[in-house]
Amino acid sequence: MKVAKFGGSSVANAEQFRKVANIVTADPERKFVVVSAPGKRFKEDTKMTDLLILLAKKVIEEDVYEGVLAQVVARYDEIVTDLGLPRDILDVISSNLQQIIDTYADQPERLMDALKASGEDNNAKLMAHYLRHLGHEAHYVNPKDAGIFVTDEPGNAQILPQSYEQIAKLKERSGILVIPGFFGYSLSGHVVTFPRGGSDITGSIIAAGVHATLYENFTDVDSIYCVNPSIVENPCQLRELTYREMRELSYAGFSVFHDEALQPVYKLGIPVCVKNTNNPDAPGTFIVATRDHRHQPVAGIASDTGFCSINISKYLMNREIGFGRRLLQILEDEGISYEHTPSGIDNMSVILREEQLAGDVERRVLERIEKELQVDEVSIERDLALIMVVGEGMERSVGIAAKATAAFARANINIEMINQGSSEVSMMFGVKADAVERAVRALYEVYF
Amino acid sequence: MKVAKFGGSSVANAEQFRKVANIVTADPERKFVVVSAPGKRFKEDTKMTDLLILLAKKVIEEDVYEGVLAQVVARYDEIVTDLGLPRDILDVISSNLQQIIDTYADQPERLMDALKASGEDNNAKLMAHYLRHLGHEAHYVNPKDAGIFVTDEPGNAQILPQSYEQIAKLKERSGILVIPGFFGYSLSGHVVTFPRGGSDITGSIIAAGVHATLYENFTDVDSIYCVNPSIVENPCQLRELTYREMRELSYAGFSVFHDEALQPVYKLGIPVCVKNTNNPDAPGTFIVATRDHRHQPVAGIASDTGFCSINISKYLMNREIGFGRRLLQILEDEGISYEHTPSGIDNMSVILREEQLAGDVERRVLERIEKELQVDEVSIERDLALIMVVGEGMERSVGIAAKATAAFARANINIEMINQGSSEVSMMFGVKADAVERAVRALYEVYF
Repeated sequence: MKVAKFGGSSVANAEQFRKVANIVTADPERKFVVVSAPGKRFKEDTKMTDLLILLAKKVIEEDVYEGVLAQVVARYDEIVTDLGLPRDILDVISSNLQQIIDTYADQPERLMDALKASGEDNNAKLMAHYLRHLGHEAHYVNPKDAGIFVTDEPGNAQILPQSYEQIAKLKERSGILVIPGFFGYSLSGHVVTFPRGGSDITGSIIAAGVHATLYENFTDVDSIYCVNPSIVENPCQLRELTYREMRELSYAGFSVFHDEALQPVYKLGIPVCVKNTNNPDAPGTFIVATRDHRHQPVAGIASDTGFCSINISKYLMNREIGFGRRLLQILEDEGISYEHTPSGIDNMSVILREEQLAGDVERRVLERIEKELQVDEVSIERDLALIMVVGEGMERSVGIAAKATAAFARANINIEMINQGSSEVSMMFGVKADAVERAVRALYEVYF
Repeated sequence: MKVAKFGGSSVANAEQFRKVANIVTADPERKFVVVSAPGKRFKEDTKMTDLLILLAKKVIEEDVYEGVLAQVVARYDEIVTDLGLPRDILDVISSNLQQIIDTYADQPERLMDALKASGEDNNAKLMAHYLRHLGHEAHYVNPKDAGIFVTDEPGNAQILPQSYEQIAKLKERSGILVIPGFFGYSLSGHVVTFPRGGSDITGSIIAAGVHATLYENFTDVDSIYCVNPSIVENPCQLRELTYREMRELSYAGFSVFHDEALQPVYKLGIPVCVKNTNNPDAPGTFIVATRDHRHQPVAGIASDTGFCSINISKYLMNREIGFGRRLLQILEDEGISYEHTPSGIDNMSVILREEQLAGDVERRVLERIEKELQVDEVSIERDLALIMVVGEGMERSVGIAAKATAAFARANINIEMINQGSSEVSMMFGVKADAVERAVRALYEVYF
């Protein structure tokens, strides 16, 4: 049995619904279907989810919201009409939205979560309808009935372990089961949405729960590329990636499949296949536990900007047991998470996402470092980019670092930082943000 | 005014005493002379300090010690006789030693410190005698009279700030002042020795106290070499090094001048010159605040073995604020100091000196990491060597890393770890211990 998840662009309108129906019904193994909310139909279009967030804001600000509400319904109307479905489903959707608004009017967070979730929820109802309309046995399954129970943290739900046992029972149900992505239910019965990549997470959870043979993640690209196509023109497509490689790449900027969504399937070794709804015959990219990396030690090159480095120097720092711990304590007190901490003998740097020092935080952190650690010098280096070269074959392969550093030298790019040695599958370089695209191109040249 | 410090081999016997006298009296600026205890006269010889440690042990173990005591006095006797000095000084020395033994018989730590210190102390008395014998005005100055007051930590004295004011007064005294290295006095009046590199520290303190124009550090090599001569045959000699370069090099294995001894002069920017007592005309190596590094960005390559790496992996580690801090806390609780902590997304390594995990410590640390941090995996990689490429010119020089990594690749050496980015003057590589000499030679090839 397979789980097939369809992203926003795959269910943006009637035409896409037809493609999805064809894909789902083409393979009897595709029993579990997870759908997102309608995405963009064209470049300037607004995603359903964004419409719903706008709707929620208007309700919260006690502004006139009926106009936005109408827009939301209109989008479903378009799909219903184009697919020639009975219109009564639209009344179900409208009343459902109105009910959410009435129920949570005075609970902004709940309202936001419930309205956001409705985008997937109503789209799943439509999809089930459409499949039945085509003569297939298909059922909409609400996440509560599916057994998706989560922590009660609006916008940041985490799956509860006991869910899996109940999800497994879905296997016994007949027909195609259509499940909305992006949210689950707290034990107190509230709708709670997942963090970024929500629908991918739902698909992964279902795949793990039913021990699927494959988790198909349908999106709008033929495959995952070895480097960001906006930086390198038509880069090579990846046939296979390991979970670890995918995790490191998506962490460092690969957005096609969100890393957190890997966790449930990773634990069970269930393969993931990223495919294109608009070109289902393309083989896509498989994300698996192990791959043969003899011919291609490097899998991909990811890059991300918006980092900065807090550079600290203090004479005889390395004789001071506890220095590093006290530095990290200061960051922890401010709820700051860091990426790396390269250290010399008398110096230590902390690489972190710049936005975390917003507002008053920067001043407080620097003051505490100066006062409490009595450093000789502390400064911040801004506008850094991190580049991650990722590949299972890197650890045992002499010369990988040589290729990279030579490429930087040829491109006349100064390496601000190198971090290699902890992760077996990645090597990290820090460069100035304005050099990052040149750097990535230079690396692509040598590795692909 | 200059401070001239002479190491053990420079004052090992009468012949060396004559060289020292010639050097000191050749330059009227050499007003402050700091001497070590007599070092080895030939390869298999025993250093005076080791004799004194043996003597102290025998006294502490209430063993027969007179034989060793006689050996100690015999070494001074040899010098006195060869230099034709009045023998009464020997009685002073013997009674001084006996007095120390009687005073501290029941205080092992004090006894050890006092006897160790006597090596320098009595040698300084001899040197002053000899200079007077040659017709020069010279005075032995006891560290207490010099104003060298230190923390009361036997074997690990730290200078007390108030000392400098008093040391400055030495400038007003006439003649050549001969001061024993290696120890000072606690405020409670006890002799307390400095840590490793003790006499260098005394010289540095005196130089700082009297605001010397130069601190000459006389040893038995013509200069500091850019790499360990036991690894590379007659490597290039360094004319100039900055304090920072010297500190990083000596930390990573350069033993000629102990880094801790740099601190007092570093603060005042007093230049240090490492010279050869046996070849005083050789220019030696200057350690200064800044150097022109355009033609030689890399100053030296140091290496040290005996490191290991604790490798930890945990899925989604980087989402866990406080993970690094708690890991370092565990090490701190065990009094372990670490070198570097390269980190990936789901992994973190801690590089530290292997000996720190001796006995039961390793088991305790690993157990706590597993239990308290709930990691997926923790393992130890042993027999690592760290190689430090040091140079003020490195930060701004594109391609330094490329040269190094290419050298490793050509020598077919796998780089276990690269750490660059915090220190502006060094780049660190981790390799297997058995590859370190090949690695250093490969680096020497490309940089020199």
